[in-house]
Amino acid sequence: MKPEIQSLVNQVRSGDVRAVARAISSVENRLPESSDLLKALFPYTGKARVIGITGAPGAGKSTLVDQLARFYRKHGRSVGIIAVDPTSPYTGGAILGDRIRMQEHFSDPGIYIRSMATRGSLGGLARTTADVATVLDASGRDLIMIETVGVGQDEVDIVRLAQVTVVILVPGMGDDVQSIKAGIMEIADIFVINKSDRDGAEHVEREIRTLQSLATRRDCWTPPIIKTVASSGQGMSELATAVGDYEAYLQRKDLVLNKSVENWQERLLEMLRDSMLDKARALFSDGNLERMATEVAEHKRDPYTLVEEIAAGVRR
Amino acid sequence: MKPEIQSLVNQVRSGDVRAVARAISSVENRLPESSDLLKALFPYTGKARVIGITGAPGAGKSTLVDQLARFYRKHGRSVGIIAVDPTSPYTGGAILGDRIRMQEHFSDPGIYIRSMATRGSLGGLARTTADVATVLDASGRDLIMIETVGVGQDEVDIVRLAQVTVVILVPGMGDDVQSIKAGIMEIADIFVINKSDRDGAEHVEREIRTLQSLATRRDCWTPPIIKTVASSGQGMSELATAVGDYEAYLQRKDLVLNKSVENWQERLLEMLRDSMLDKARALFSDGNLERMATEVAEHKRDPYTLVEEIAAGVRR
Repeated sequence: MKPEIQSLVNQVRSGDVRAVARAISSVENRLPESSDLLKALFPYTGKARVIGITGAPGAGKSTLVDQLARFYRKHGRSVGIIAVDPTSPYTGGAILGDRIRMQEHFSDPGIYIRSMATRGSLGGLARTTADVATVLDASGRDLIMIETVGVGQDEVDIVRLAQVTVVILVPGMGDDVQSIKAGIMEIADIFVINKSDRDGAEHVEREIRTLQSLATRRDCWTPPIIKTVASSGQGMSELATAVGDYEAYLQRKDLVLNKSVENWQERLLEMLRDSMLDKARALFSDGNLERMATEVAEHKRDPYTLVEEIAAGVRR
Repeated sequence: MKPEIQSLVNQVRSGDVRAVARAISSVENRLPESSDLLKALFPYTGKARVIGITGAPGAGKSTLVDQLARFYRKHGRSVGIIAVDPTSPYTGGAILGDRIRMQEHFSDPGIYIRSMATRGSLGGLARTTADVATVLDASGRDLIMIETVGVGQDEVDIVRLAQVTVVILVPGMGDDVQSIKAGIMEIADIFVINKSDRDGAEHVEREIRTLQSLATRRDCWTPPIIKTVASSGQGMSELATAVGDYEAYLQRKDLVLNKSVENWQERLLEMLRDSMLDKARALFSDGNLERMATEVAEHKRDPYTLVEEIAAGVRR
């Protein structure tokens, strides 16, 4: 390993915020050294609790994450926040502004916030998020919160990284949101009804209970429903307790390793896919891709046979 | 090619609805014969217009697609609808019920509706949607509408398949939705303000105009803003006209092939990625994956080196 990388690894491990930011940028942009960096950091990970927090747009995720982070800070635990925003690969930063405000807000070095936008079109967001979590974990953060909008497969993949997944609902959302709820029933370890001072909180609670009675979890945990008003910090203590309860449950049932093994099965496949895709891309160099796409667009070639042929040549 | 497949191809081409349904199921579930089926159908595609329709939850997408389909039917064109729902791979069907209602509603065989849920955890939804569109195209549908929730990268990938992308906004959505807007500015060829009889329609229009002045499209098309009230069918004629205008623009500027070549570059890469994933899975056979995931979860092995080794073929 290059001495610069070793030096960066040491700085990250000491918790140096600038080094952490640099390491994350390297990982996010998949710079050439990022692979060595991750290899070197990995042995120092596995200590942080990773909490995934997801919910529909407008559910108050940022505020809740903000308040929960404050709560943990009051109890002396350091926090890293990864906010994954489904913004454009082009324009980028609508929510970024929001994050910058949040960053200013936290003069406390015990809270580190990193905003990530969707990158590229061929996925990899879940993987990048996992790699960023690796850096934060190695830097000694006690808790890592991953915050993401709860719609779409990308987001499900992202929260799957977490040991504990919190799903936020709010009273008075429309029909489409109900369908999102169905989609995330299985991944929720804890439900939060945020803005629970609004009308309809009981209705949401009843709906969750109904969905719970239909869903089958592979374990025997019944996800609790915590009512919060994140804007005023109400319910944070109860939420933190629920997180602790679930962790205790996992430990009691020896499920921690199980869950981690399952996650790693997915992640290894994903990493291998990306790695092989890089190989495949290399085959498409020198304008090859455009030429082939043109042939397909002109219907001179069928894409299915084409891809089979290319894939067959990758391992040569 | 097996005679059964040839026979299915012929039936699909003749527009037989049952054959189309069977072919789509085969493609959706990636049955062994689906690859040959797609290869055989591909030469008969390229005639349908593909319209992508996307918008935030609650924007009234289904209703708008429904009404637009009726409009086209009145003008004698056959329509295929692919509704992509970000529901669970487990519970599946929240929106499905909605779709079944819609299906009953259309006794008209000139409209074919297919609902698709998110499948699997490693993407492929955009690809499956594209393959379903291939079947519908080969079956002779004049128009194919792909409807999806406009959040997340999956959905952006899906609408990218379309020749024309319609983005639906509604008055009075919260801040998160504004960020979604930023994310889809670049992919919108036409904006629809649905529920435009509500307060705030002008405000949304102004916002779109502002975002448009900031965004840079690679072509010189300025996406028009169409106001609709989908529930009463209002604005459908204007929307269909806008779709036609954009197609005429593409043809005038010789951009049809360009756009198709760009789409195919993305799709070929995606197909190759999926194909690589299949290879990756094969490398992990016989409980290998679980064993390795356990070693990683126990921190006995670093996943980054492991994946590199597998990809290099060292561990065969």
